[in-house]
Amino acid sequence: MTSRAARQDISPAGLANDFAATRSLSEALVEPLSEADATLQSMEDASPAKWHLAHTTWFWETFLLRDHLEGYSLFDDNWPFVFNSYYEAEGERIHRFSRGMLSRPTMAEIIDWRAKVDEAMQPLFEREELRPLIELGIAHEQQHQELLLTDIKHALFQNPLGVAMWQEEPKANSNTLEQEWHSHPGGIARIGHQEQGFAFDNEGPDHRVLLEPFELSSSLVTNGEWAEFIADGGYETASLWLSDGWAWVKENGIAAPLYWNGDEAFTHCGSQVWDPNAPVTHISYFEADAFATWAGMRLPTEFEWEAITRGQEGELAAHDPCGGNQLDQAAPPLPVGGEGLFGDCWQFTRSAYLPYPRFQPAEGAVGEYNGKFMSGQFVLKGASCATVRGHSRASYRNFFYPHQRWQFTGLRLARDV
Amino acid sequence: MTSRAARQDISPAGLANDFAATRSLSEALVEPLSEADATLQSMEDASPAKWHLAHTTWFWETFLLRDHLEGYSLFDDNWPFVFNSYYEAEGERIHRFSRGMLSRPTMAEIIDWRAKVDEAMQPLFEREELRPLIELGIAHEQQHQELLLTDIKHALFQNPLGVAMWQEEPKANSNTLEQEWHSHPGGIARIGHQEQGFAFDNEGPDHRVLLEPFELSSSLVTNGEWAEFIADGGYETASLWLSDGWAWVKENGIAAPLYWNGDEAFTHCGSQVWDPNAPVTHISYFEADAFATWAGMRLPTEFEWEAITRGQEGELAAHDPCGGNQLDQAAPPLPVGGEGLFGDCWQFTRSAYLPYPRFQPAEGAVGEYNGKFMSGQFVLKGASCATVRGHSRASYRNFFYPHQRWQFTGLRLARDV
Amino acid sequence: MTSRAARQDISPAGLANDFAATRSLSEALVEPLSEADATLQSMEDASPAKWHLAHTTWFWETFLLRDHLEGYSLFDDNWPFVFNSYYEAEGERIHRFSRGMLSRPTMAEIIDWRAKVDEAMQPLFEREELRPLIELGIAHEQQHQELLLTDIKHALFQNPLGVAMWQEEPKANSNTLEQEWHSHPGGIARIGHQEQGFAFDNEGPDHRVLLEPFELSSSLVTNGEWAEFIADGGYETASLWLSDGWAWVKENGIAAPLYWNGDEAFTHCGSQVWDPNAPVTHISYFEADAFATWAGMRLPTEFEWEAITRGQEGELAAHDPCGGNQLDQAAPPLPVGGEGLFGDCWQFTRSAYLPYPRFQPAEGAVGEYNGKFMSGQFVLKGASCATVRGHSRASYRNFFYPHQRWQFTGLRLARDV
Amino acid sequence: MTSRAARQDISPAGLANDFAATRSLSEALVEPLSEADATLQSMEDASPAKWHLAHTTWFWETFLLRDHLEGYSLFDDNWPFVFNSYYEAEGERIHRFSRGMLSRPTMAEIIDWRAKVDEAMQPLFEREELRPLIELGIAHEQQHQELLLTDIKHALFQNPLGVAMWQEEPKANSNTLEQEWHSHPGGIARIGHQEQGFAFDNEGPDHRVLLEPFELSSSLVTNGEWAEFIADGGYETASLWLSDGWAWVKENGIAAPLYWNGDEAFTHCGSQVWDPNAPVTHISYFEADAFATWAGMRLPTEFEWEAITRGQEGELAAHDPCGGNQLDQAAPPLPVGGEGLFGDCWQFTRSAYLPYPRFQPAEGAVGEYNGKFMSGQFVLKGASCATVRGHSRASYRNFFYPHQRWQFTGLRLARDV
Repeated sequence: MTSRAARQDISPAGLANDFAATRSLSEALVEPLSEADATLQSMEDASPAKWHLAHTTWFWETFLLRDHLEGYSLFDDNWPFVFNSYYEAEGERIHRFSRGMLSRPTMAEIIDWRAKVDEAMQPLFEREELRPLIELGIAHEQQHQELLLTDIKHALFQNPLGVAMWQEEPKANSNTLEQEWHSHPGGIARIGHQEQGFAFDNEGPDHRVLLEPFELSSSLVTNGEWAEFIADGGYETASLWLSDGWAWVKENGIAAPLYWNGDEAFTHCGSQVWDPNAPVTHISYFEADAFATWAGMRLPTEFEWEAITRGQEGELAAHDPCGGNQLDQAAPPLPVGGEGLFGDCWQFTRSAYLPYPRFQPAEGAVGEYNGKFMSGQFVLKGASCATVRGHSRASYRNFFYPHQRWQFTGLRLARDV
Repeated sequence: MTSRAARQDISPAGLANDFAATRSLSEALVEPLSEADATLQSMEDASPAKWHLAHTTWFWETFLLRDHLEGYSLFDDNWPFVFNSYYEAEGERIHRFSRGMLSRPTMAEIIDWRAKVDEAMQPLFEREELRPLIELGIAHEQQHQELLLTDIKHALFQNPLGVAMWQEEPKANSNTLEQEWHSHPGGIARIGHQEQGFAFDNEGPDHRVLLEPFELSSSLVTNGEWAEFIADGGYETASLWLSDGWAWVKENGIAAPLYWNGDEAFTHCGSQVWDPNAPVTHISYFEADAFATWAGMRLPTEFEWEAITRGQEGELAAHDPCGGNQLDQAAPPLPVGGEGLFGDCWQFTRSAYLPYPRFQPAEGAVGEYNGKFMSGQFVLKGASCATVRGHSRASYRNFFYPHQRWQFTGLRLARDV
Repeated sequence: MTSRAARQDISPAGLANDFAATRSLSEALVEPLSEADATLQSMEDASPAKWHLAHTTWFWETFLLRDHLEGYSLFDDNWPFVFNSYYEAEGERIHRFSRGMLSRPTMAEIIDWRAKVDEAMQPLFEREELRPLIELGIAHEQQHQELLLTDIKHALFQNPLGVAMWQEEPKANSNTLEQEWHSHPGGIARIGHQEQGFAFDNEGPDHRVLLEPFELSSSLVTNGEWAEFIADGGYETASLWLSDGWAWVKENGIAAPLYWNGDEAFTHCGSQVWDPNAPVTHISYFEADAFATWAGMRLPTEFEWEAITRGQEGELAAHDPCGGNQLDQAAPPLPVGGEGLFGDCWQFTRSAYLPYPRFQPAEGAVGEYNGKFMSGQFVLKGASCATVRGHSRASYRNFFYPHQRWQFTGLRLARDV
Repeated sequence: MTSRAARQDISPAGLANDFAATRSLSEALVEPLSEADATLQSMEDASPAKWHLAHTTWFWETFLLRDHLEGYSLFDDNWPFVFNSYYEAEGERIHRFSRGMLSRPTMAEIIDWRAKVDEAMQPLFEREELRPLIELGIAHEQQHQELLLTDIKHALFQNPLGVAMWQEEPKANSNTLEQEWHSHPGGIARIGHQEQGFAFDNEGPDHRVLLEPFELSSSLVTNGEWAEFIADGGYETASLWLSDGWAWVKENGIAAPLYWNGDEAFTHCGSQVWDPNAPVTHISYFEADAFATWAGMRLPTEFEWEAITRGQEGELAAHDPCGGNQLDQAAPPLPVGGEGLFGDCWQFTRSAYLPYPRFQPAEGAVGEYNGKFMSGQFVLKGASCATVRGHSRASYRNFFYPHQRWQFTGLRLARDV
C-alpha cells in the first residue's frame, strides 16, 4: 500500500469533501487558459494542462472505478493509451513527448469525463478499505496541480510575445529577513512518516539516522544573494561546480536562474521585476550546490532538514507549520519569503533519492508511484508557492534530476558546527 | 521581380476579387479546426494552421502595406518576429520548430488582423506597379493553403485516437485507367514560363533544352501497383535504392507510404480503406526512384514532363489542363486519379532543383522566395488534390528534399525509346 | 590533502620501490599492444592505453616535479594540453573524445618521457612533506592501470575480427561456492578510513552510521545465476527495473551482460566460454538492481558492506583480506570467484556517491580528484581482478554512473533481517 | 559495364605495369605513417590509411580473383566483412564509423596480403575479357590514393600538437596569374566520355547538351581573393548564401576554409603560411556558391566546364592537358596554381550529380560504384594536386555533398554573356 497509514479521523463525508475540493481546484486552475494554451507541451519533462486534467481522471477511473466499482465501464476504451503516464503494468502508452499532439479530446470532453468520473466515485467514499487509495488519488491530483502550474509556466515562456496567464500587479517588495540559524546537537533522529494520516510510500518506513551537529539557516537564499553570486563570477568559476554541473553550464550557456532576464523574471503574470528579498527559485541542484560552495557552506541532508523541522514543530505550529506561501485557490503562485520551513520553494538537499531501510513499494501498478525513480535524483524538502496547502509534511520527499529547474526550486544553507 | 510578367488582362476589380477569394478560402479551410488543432506543429517541416493564416497576412502587411502604403503602421510590432518564415532580410525570427508554442495570439486575434489587413489592402489594387507583387502574394497564400492542409494532416495523424478533420464517406473506387504513353521524338524543347500571366521567378528565364526521344506514362502509379512493389520485397531490396535512400529506409524502418496502415490510410477524413486504382501518394523521392527502378523504367526529367505537357495542351484543354483533381473549396483533398497531367499528386522528376540559365532572383527580401533553396532538392511537376485550382502551370516547379513525403507526392513513369 | 594520513612506516627507499614497481607495471601492461592498439579510443568513457601511460606521467610531472622540484622544466610545453584529464585548475585541454586522435607522440616518445620523469623524481622520495602526494600519485597510477585494462578490452571488442590481447587457455571451471550469509546485528558502525596509511579524500572523514540488522551474501552472483535471470525473462520484465534502467534497456536493446555472446564472453584472451560458477561481471547498476529485485533481495548499502568487511577482518586476514583475485603482474584479468570480499569484481551498492559528513576536498588542483564527481553516481566496494593487489581497502569508494558497465562490475546480495 | 570502352592500345604487359605502379604508389604513400597514424579515422566520411590499403586489395580479391580466377581461395574469410566499403550485394559489413577501431590486422599483415594478391593477379592480365574490370580496379585504387591523402590530412589535423606527415619547406609563392576568360558561343555541345580508353560508367552515355553563350575563368579563385571575401563579411552576409548553406555556417561556426588558421593553413607538412596567389582549397559547395554570388558571377555547369575543356584541348595539350599539379609520386600534395584546367583542386560546378540520359549502371556489385550516389551531391570537374597524374579526363565526374570540404576542392568562376 502506498499510504503508510490511513487517516482514521476522517469521515466518508470529509473524504468526499476533500475529493470534491481537489477536483474543483484542478478545473479552476485551467480557467485562464485557452484550448490551445492547455494543449501546449514545451519539453519532454512537462505535460499539457489538459493532459493533467485527463491523467488525474484516468487515475481515478483506473485504480478506483475500474478496479473497485462493480459494473463500471470505461468512458472511452482508447483513452488509457493516451492518459496513462508511466505505469508499465497498465500497458502500452503514448510516447511522453507526444502529449502535445493531443488537440483532441477537447477540454469540454475532458471536463465532461471528469464530471462523470466524479459522479461515479460517490459510492466509494463509504468503503473503508478504499480510503488509503482515495487519499493517494487526492495526493496524486494535488501533485499534478503543482506540475500543471509549472508546466504551463514553462510553455508560455516559450512564446516570445510574453504571454501572461494571470493579469496581476507584482506584489510589493518583501522585507529583508535577518539571517538566523536553527541548531541541532547531533545524535539519533527519527526519520520518516510516523504520524497518523496519509503519506506516500517513499516516506517510510520510519527509522533512525545518526546526525552530526549542524546548523540550518532560518531563511531561504534570496534573489539578491543570487545576484551577488552572479556578480562574483559564480557561473564562470569551474572550481565551484560539480563536474556534471560545469558540463551542464557550458553546454547550455547557463548564466542565471531559468526565468531571469536581467532585472526581470518571467512569471505566471508575465515578465516582472524580481524582488531581491524574495527567495530565488527555478535553479537546478547543480546551481544550488555551486552557490553553497561559493558561500562557504553546504546543502543540508534530507535528514538534517527533517530533524530541524520536527524539532521546531511546536514553535512553528503557531505560524502554520505546514503552511507558508502555498496554494489554496486558483491564483498566480509567487515566492515571497517568510519564516516557515515550508512554502515558497522546494529546497534541495544533498541527499540522493534512495529507498529508506526496509522500503517496499506497494503491490500492483500503484507500486510504480515512487520506488522506480530511485536513481539519479536528489531529494527536495518543504513545499513551494505552487504546492496545495495541506499537501506538505516534514517527511515529504520530492525528487528531481540535478539539471531540472522548471519547478519552484530554491535552497536553504546548512553548515557544520 | 518574382513574377516574370504581370497579367495585363486583369482589371483592378478582378485582382481584388482574386485576393478576396484567396483570403476567404484560407479562413474557410480552418473552419473544422479547434483552437488547439490550429496550434499544433508536428515536426520542423510543418507549421500550425493558425501560423499559416498569420504568416500569409504578415506577407501582405510587410511587402505591400508597410513598403507601399504611406502612413501604414503595423498591427503589432512584435508579430513579425513570430510570423516571418525564412526571410533573412526581414531580421531575426522565432526558431522554426517553436511555432507550435504560439498558443497566442488566438485565432480570433489573427482573424481580426486578417480583416484589418484586407481592408487596408483595398487602395493598392488600383496601383499598376504593385500588380506583380499582389499576384505574388496571392500565389504565396495559395501555396500556404496547400501546406496548411498537408501540415494539419500530419499533425492530426500524430494523435493515436484517430482524429478526422472532416467527416465524409470515402468516395467510391475509381476505375482502372488503361496504361498509355505520351511519346516525344526528342529535339529542342522550349522550357520555362513563356506566356503572359504570373509565374514564380524560378520558372524562368525560358530557354531551350535538348531532349532525347522518350515516353511518359499517361497515368500515375496507383496504390494497387505500389502494393505489388511491397509484396515483391521492394522495401527490402537494397539494389533498387539510391544509397541515401536505403540508409533512410533502414534508419526509419520505412515499409510503406507515409500514411498507410495495412489496407487503410490516414486521410483528412480519418482512416480509410485505400483505393487500389487511385494514385499512390505521400511517398518520398527515394521511394519513387526505387519503384521506377523496380518497374524497369525511370522518373522523367522536369524538362521531359514539361515538354509533354506543352505538346498536349491543345488536346488537354478540353479536359481542363490546369484542372484535374484540385481544390476549389474547403473540402477534404483526396487523390482519385484521372486523365490529366495535373492534379491528384505532385510528380517527382529526376531533376535536381537548380537555377535555369541566366536566372536572377528578385531584388530585396522577396528574392529569397525561391533561389536560396537551390541545393539538395528535387523538382516536382503537376499539382495535387490539395493545390488550389488555377494555381498550376506547365512551368511550375515545386521542390522537396528526397526524404520528405508529407505532401501529396506520387509519380508518373517515363522510359527511353 | 587527499590522503587522510600518510604512512609513517614506510621509508624513502620503500616509497621509491613502490613508485618504481607501479611505473614498471604500467609499462608491462602495454607490452602485448601494438602502437595502433594503444592509440584506440572506443568511446568517450574510455581512453587509449598510450594516453594512460602519458596522463599518469603528466600527473607526476605536474603535481610533483613542476610544483616541487626547483628548476624543473617541462618535457614538452604542449603536452599538458593533451594529457590533462579533467583538472579545470590546470587549464584548457583536449576534448575527451579526441584522445583517440593522438597517434603522436609515439609510444617510444612516451616511454622516453616516462623514463625522464622517473629519473627526475628520485630526489623527492626523501622529502617527508611530499609523501602524501607521492602516495596519491601511486594510487592514481594504479587506478589508471585498471582503467587501461578495461578500456583496451572495450576497444578490442569493437573489432569484429575478435582480437585477443593475450593468448591464454581459459582457466578450468571454478567450483560452486555454497551460499552463506554474513550477519550484522545493526547498531552504530564506524565508517570511513580510520587506519594509518594512504586513502583517498573521499574515504573520510571517518564517522558513525546507524545500521538496521541485515545479512550480506558470502558469495558473488555468478554467471550461472545470471543465466537463470535471463531465462526467466529478466530483461523483458519492466516491473523488475528502475524507470531509468528500463528506458536504458529499451533504448540500447540490452539483453545480457556487456561482453556476452551466447555461451561465450569476450575477454582479454578473446572470446571464451563463460564459467557458470564464476562471478558475473560487466553489468550496470540498473542490471544489478533488477537482478536483486528478481531474487527477492536487494543490494547492500556501502555502509553495510563496509561494516561486514571490518567485522570480518580478523577472520579474513588469513585469506589475504585485501587480496583475492587481483592483479600483481601483467596478466589477463579474469574473475574466477572466491571467498574473499575483495577481488573478482567491484560490487554495486545502493548508495549514491555523496560526501561523508564534514568532507572537504583538498586545496588546489588535486582537490578535483574525487569531490566534484559527487552527483548521479553509485558507490562500488571491494576490488576486481583488474585492481592492483594492495590497492584495496574496506573504506575504498569506487563510483560509476548507473548505466556504465565496461568495468569488472558485479554484485553481492543483501537482505533485511 | 563500368568502363565505357576498354583501351585497345594497351598490351597485357602494359596493363600489368600500370597495375604494379598503382599498387606500389599506394604503399609508398603510407611510408611516412606510423601504425597508429594509419589506423586513425577522424570522421565518418574518412577512412584509415591502412583501411584504404586493405579495401583496394579486397576489391581485387573479390571482383577479380574470387570471381575470375579458378580455385582462388580468400586470404582470410573474415576480412570482407571489415574491408567492403559499401557494396550491398557483397553482404553485411562493419559500420562505416568503426573502421578506426581496426588496430588489427596490422600494416604488416595487410602488406603481406597485398603482395599475395598482386602475385595471384598476374595470370589475369592476359585475359582480354577482364581488361575493363582491371582498368576499373586501377582507377578505383587511384581514387583511394587521393582519399587516403585527404583522409590522413584530416586525421592529423585533429591532433593539437600539429603533426606533419612530411617535413618539407613550403614552396615559394607562386606568381599572380592575370585573369582571362575562355569564351563559348553556346550551341550544342557533346558531353560525356567519347574516346577510347577507360572511363567510369557515370561519364556516359555521351550525349548532346544545349548551351547558352558563357565565359569561364582561365584561373582558379585564389587564397588572396578568398581573404577579400572574408574581409568583406562574406561569412556574415546571409543574402550571399543558399538557405542550407547559411544554416550550415551558423550551426558549425564556419568562418574560413577548413584548414585555415589566420595566415596559416594546415597541410601535409604541418601548418604553413598560405600563398595568396595559390588556389583556395578545402571549401564546400556552399562556400563556393556564396563566393560566386559575392563576386557577381556564378559557378559553371558541368557541361560548360567540359565544353570549354574539350574546345581547349588542342591548345592545352602542349601544357599537359591532363597534367597540371597532380600526383605522380609519394609527395606532399600542395596546390600552387597554374594555367591548366586540371590539377590543383577539384572545381565545384552548379550541376547536381545525376544520371546522363540512358545511363544504366553495370550489372552486379560493381554497378553500385557510381549510380546509387545520384542524389543530393554536386559534380566537381578537373583534378587536384592529390589526384594521380593520368587519372583525369574532361568527362570525369567527381561528386560530393554540398557541405563536404575535406577534399582539395576549390572553384573557377563563370559568367553569362
